[in-house]
Amino acid sequence: MKLTLQQKANIVRKWCLISTSEAGSGHPTSCLSAADIMTVLFDKYLTYDLQTPQNLQNDRVIFSKGHASPLLYSLFALTGAYDTEELKTLRKFGSRLEGHPTPRYPYAEAATGSLGQGLSVGNGLAVGMQREVILQNKPHVYVLLGDGEMAEGQVWEAANFASYYKLNNIVAIVDVNRLGQSQETMFGHHVEAYANKFNAFGFETITIDGHNFDEIIQAFDKATTNKRDKPFAIIAKTHKGHGISFLQDKDNWHGKALKKDDLEKALKELGELPEEKKIFSVKIPAKSSSIEKPVNEKNSDSSLLLQTPKLGEEIATREVYGTTLAQLGMANMLIFALDGDVKNSTFSIDFKSAHADRFIECFIAEQNMVGVALGLSRFGKLPFVSTFAAFLTRAFDQVRMARLSDANIKFVGSHAGVSIGEDGSSQMGLEDIAMFATLPDTVVLHPCDAVSTEKLLSTLVTQPGIGYLRTLRSKTPVMYDETQTFSIGGSKILRESPDDRVTIVAAGITVFEALQAYEILKQESIMVRVVDCYSIKPIDSKTLIRCAEETKQKFIITVEDHFEHGGLGDLVLSAVAESGAHVKKMAIKHISHSGTMKELLDDGGISAKHIVKKVKSIV
Amino acid sequence: MKLTLQQKANIVRKWCLISTSEAGSGHPTSCLSAADIMTVLFDKYLTYDLQTPQNLQNDRVIFSKGHASPLLYSLFALTGAYDTEELKTLRKFGSRLEGHPTPRYPYAEAATGSLGQGLSVGNGLAVGMQREVILQNKPHVYVLLGDGEMAEGQVWEAANFASYYKLNNIVAIVDVNRLGQSQETMFGHHVEAYANKFNAFGFETITIDGHNFDEIIQAFDKATTNKRDKPFAIIAKTHKGHGISFLQDKDNWHGKALKKDDLEKALKELGELPEEKKIFSVKIPAKSSSIEKPVNEKNSDSSLLLQTPKLGEEIATREVYGTTLAQLGMANMLIFALDGDVKNSTFSIDFKSAHADRFIECFIAEQNMVGVALGLSRFGKLPFVSTFAAFLTRAFDQVRMARLSDANIKFVGSHAGVSIGEDGSSQMGLEDIAMFATLPDTVVLHPCDAVSTEKLLSTLVTQPGIGYLRTLRSKTPVMYDETQTFSIGGSKILRESPDDRVTIVAAGITVFEALQAYEILKQESIMVRVVDCYSIKPIDSKTLIRCAEETKQKFIITVEDHFEHGGLGDLVLSAVAESGAHVKKMAIKHISHSGTMKELLDDGGISAKHIVKKVKSIV
Repeated sequence: MKLTLQQKANIVRKWCLISTSEAGSGHPTSCLSAADIMTVLFDKYLTYDLQTPQNLQNDRVIFSKGHASPLLYSLFALTGAYDTEELKTLRKFGSRLEGHPTPRYPYAEAATGSLGQGLSVGNGLAVGMQREVILQNKPHVYVLLGDGEMAEGQVWEAANFASYYKLNNIVAIVDVNRLGQSQETMFGHHVEAYANKFNAFGFETITIDGHNFDEIIQAFDKATTNKRDKPFAIIAKTHKGHGISFLQDKDNWHGKALKKDDLEKALKELGELPEEKKIFSVKIPAKSSSIEKPVNEKNSDSSLLLQTPKLGEEIATREVYGTTLAQLGMANMLIFALDGDVKNSTFSIDFKSAHADRFIECFIAEQNMVGVALGLSRFGKLPFVSTFAAFLTRAFDQVRMARLSDANIKFVGSHAGVSIGEDGSSQMGLEDIAMFATLPDTVVLHPCDAVSTEKLLSTLVTQPGIGYLRTLRSKTPVMYDETQTFSIGGSKILRESPDDRVTIVAAGITVFEALQAYEILKQESIMVRVVDCYSIKPIDSKTLIRCAEETKQKFIITVEDHFEHGGLGDLVLSAVAESGAHVKKMAIKHISHSGTMKELLDDGGISAKHIVKKVKSIV
Repeated sequence: MKLTLQQKANIVRKWCLISTSEAGSGHPTSCLSAADIMTVLFDKYLTYDLQTPQNLQNDRVIFSKGHASPLLYSLFALTGAYDTEELKTLRKFGSRLEGHPTPRYPYAEAATGSLGQGLSVGNGLAVGMQREVILQNKPHVYVLLGDGEMAEGQVWEAANFASYYKLNNIVAIVDVNRLGQSQETMFGHHVEAYANKFNAFGFETITIDGHNFDEIIQAFDKATTNKRDKPFAIIAKTHKGHGISFLQDKDNWHGKALKKDDLEKALKELGELPEEKKIFSVKIPAKSSSIEKPVNEKNSDSSLLLQTPKLGEEIATREVYGTTLAQLGMANMLIFALDGDVKNSTFSIDFKSAHADRFIECFIAEQNMVGVALGLSRFGKLPFVSTFAAFLTRAFDQVRMARLSDANIKFVGSHAGVSIGEDGSSQMGLEDIAMFATLPDTVVLHPCDAVSTEKLLSTLVTQPGIGYLRTLRSKTPVMYDETQTFSIGGSKILRESPDDRVTIVAAGITVFEALQAYEILKQESIMVRVVDCYSIKPIDSKTLIRCAEETKQKFIITVEDHFEHGGLGDLVLSAVAESGAHVKKMAIKHISHSGTMKELLDDGGISAKHIVKKVKSIV
């Protein structure tokens, strides 16, 4: 039996309704508005190897409006990828069909559900395709957006990026169903308001009735076959809850599943529908290309490094980041570097000089930058994202969603702490450790010199997941020789003796303050242990506990150029919490200002002078 | 002597150059591009009571491109507000003229320096003026933006907001100097690219040569006198470093002060200039209106509350937020509520119902929402900003800048933790405490029932600064009677006996798990103390230390529906760090999923069952 598009769309609708009612929650009306247009996509345009969602030749489908996940799940079920019965597990504990898409579900390109992020992920996939020589025919990247989320600025960051880089295989589909969660959206059904914006941001656009199959087909034909150098946006006027009389275009039906009676009424309205489990015959790509293997450890060997820093030489760790990443990029072709127009400050410019084809200037748009990294990660690349540590806060939600997506992304934040000096408080990264460390299973590193930066960066390349490396603006002396090893979860005891009274735990710039304090105290015969805690998370609990035990006062003093809560001190506290060791945190407790580094370390209470004073108050 | 506009602009330039050279750092070229246009503004259009920067009748000037602060400082100095000699203290420790504007400088409307935020602050001021009945003639809000920062999505969130609310007294001035920090901006000198975007976002626009005084005057005439219902944008084509041949339109001069020789050469190029210290005669507003006094404590008395929750009644704390804020808004006319299209979930809708004139729907654009709150705070209002706790992460940078601005803003994050259930990980606020608590001097509250929510919210109204209240999605039983008092920095011991072995410290939903655990353990004659630590920051150190001391094992177990790092547990650890008490943190250690609340609390290891197990492992 040959089904009409309308019948197919209604079968899709049926499953959206059944699955949400079965779950007792969810957003059926937000699915129904997009059901017609997405049915056409799956029926006629999508090219996809269902066995291998990450086949590089696949088209990609991103539900930026993640709350319409039942639609996503129903569409793929109806390709025959899995049984429609599984749809009844929606939102149940243990099901891969979660309330919003997550990486448990293999056809989700990214976790979505925090709105306005999908187009950036699409950018990452599309820019990956653009720079992938093996792809002669670029697959299409389809991104379904809601009208409510068009208010998110990130969408416009993403639109700028897509047009700037001429990502002509991106097709944004905007489901203008007029109704937000709590009221009408900013522009209601004025589809031209969205089209004007996309045009101004460099897209080719078409506005259609999203429930008229002829118009939908015409739009996809244009979107997928036109020769042009622009991304494409289909702006579809739709009705929330379309197809069901008592839901359609009605307020107060956002995020509500139908109760049994209403469900029966609704299904009746959809008409007689065949019980088919597979209604879409998705085209398979002509070729199959799998993601390249990640770099093997040999390739990231630090012996490859160009320059061997000399002991005592003054180099900023941010500079070392640039030269080292450029070098690592020789061996590992998966490494990409992304920056937000500060590449001459973060030194990612050195990577650009060496590997222009794998450098992506994202301009001053950190949210989109992280979304692009997420898409690249899904495409099998290893993105390094750099900007000032302070400005990574601009993308906390995107970092969070990248973590929920199980992405493999490394972040590098420069200009950490008050030690940056004259630029003042807005440019100081003082909450970055708290931000990255709160997400589960992240790695947070803060090396203090050139050698440890080099070596830890090499290690980070082979460490999956979200990693963060914090670099310093100011130059610091090379402290370690090239034979030293550094590991994630490690630390270095820099000074120790059998007479140690307390242990000073530092990282980054404060290592040098701690060493100065050591010298001053030694003059007065007060011996202290000094630890460079370069791996902040995971932290070297074993060494820390041992130090506390071996020192007379069983006291650890932590010193960090970060706000007091959520930084190194708290990770040390947690590490020794059950041991009964005493811990005193020294950290930045008030908003800093402009001044020289020396003045600000002192003003912040984390300079050698303050450490000496603190030690004396304890011993 | 009557100075020409060109002479005045060159005097301004002179001071930008001198002050940055004196400082040895800063962004002179980014000042010079905007010097002509801002000179005209100060010379002919600005109405400002220099004695009272917060006179409500004042025009407002916001430097969204905060790195051009030397221009801001020079302009106001040349009004005679302070001596030009002070400009030589730029960026020096202790000076109010910091690298980027901060609240130390009274003419800064907000701390800027994280780009793309100024237009939102302008929105907050303009919407405040719009809703202020005493203002018959609305002052103008001038926002100077750089072209590089136009890539920030927040600018477009702000543009949407300004046009949606018809903020026709906003004048955005875009300084299109072509050069970003590290390369040409996305659109170079194509001023039309910006004009098209602003037009599409509902602005009236004009493009001009930003160094042609006739065109500048024409633009300001149009911007300030036209009758229209739209905001206005002046897109000015300029040259970075304009006026100095060896700087003008040259790459690699971003953020560099001139050395002595270059400075002398540059000053020579500016020509002979009179030594005048005051070149602008700024018009004074006809009237003076000062900010209203904050609410007095009597007005926020909780006896005003409409409903008295009954013990045992099940109410969600998010619902209590809505009804209580509506009630508090009766007594305190300064309270505004802002929401991001989730007002029916956060229950700020109840405030809207009672005080529509003080409710601002910000749609799904959290970054702009926080910027609007910052502007409102500067205008003397008390904004309450609500959305899902998870989505406040979208505005971390804006919250950070609000804190640097010394703003008085209260944030309310609903849907905290895994306890939200089926919606899944993207909707769970599990990093919100880490985020708010890391900023210095913030208040973080997490009440577990209706009464404590009501009372803490009332208290929060009278507490200056950045406050955060975390609410629950699910209903919880009323636990406290109306006679109980709650204070910032307080806690409640819910169960205690002389035989207590350990102390369980909980907040929010985990209070109920802890109480359940208490009952189970009591059956087995294991007595534990239970503390409701509703004030997470500041925390009740005294009580916590006493509890640790009074319980047999000197052990505190913290239980929280938040990620392990940066939450309640870490604040407890810090509070008892020097006491030597043992602390065990129970918190969410992995990414959660969809499921029922019960399943997820259990899966997250923070349910009563897990607490019982943990206690037994200790005693």
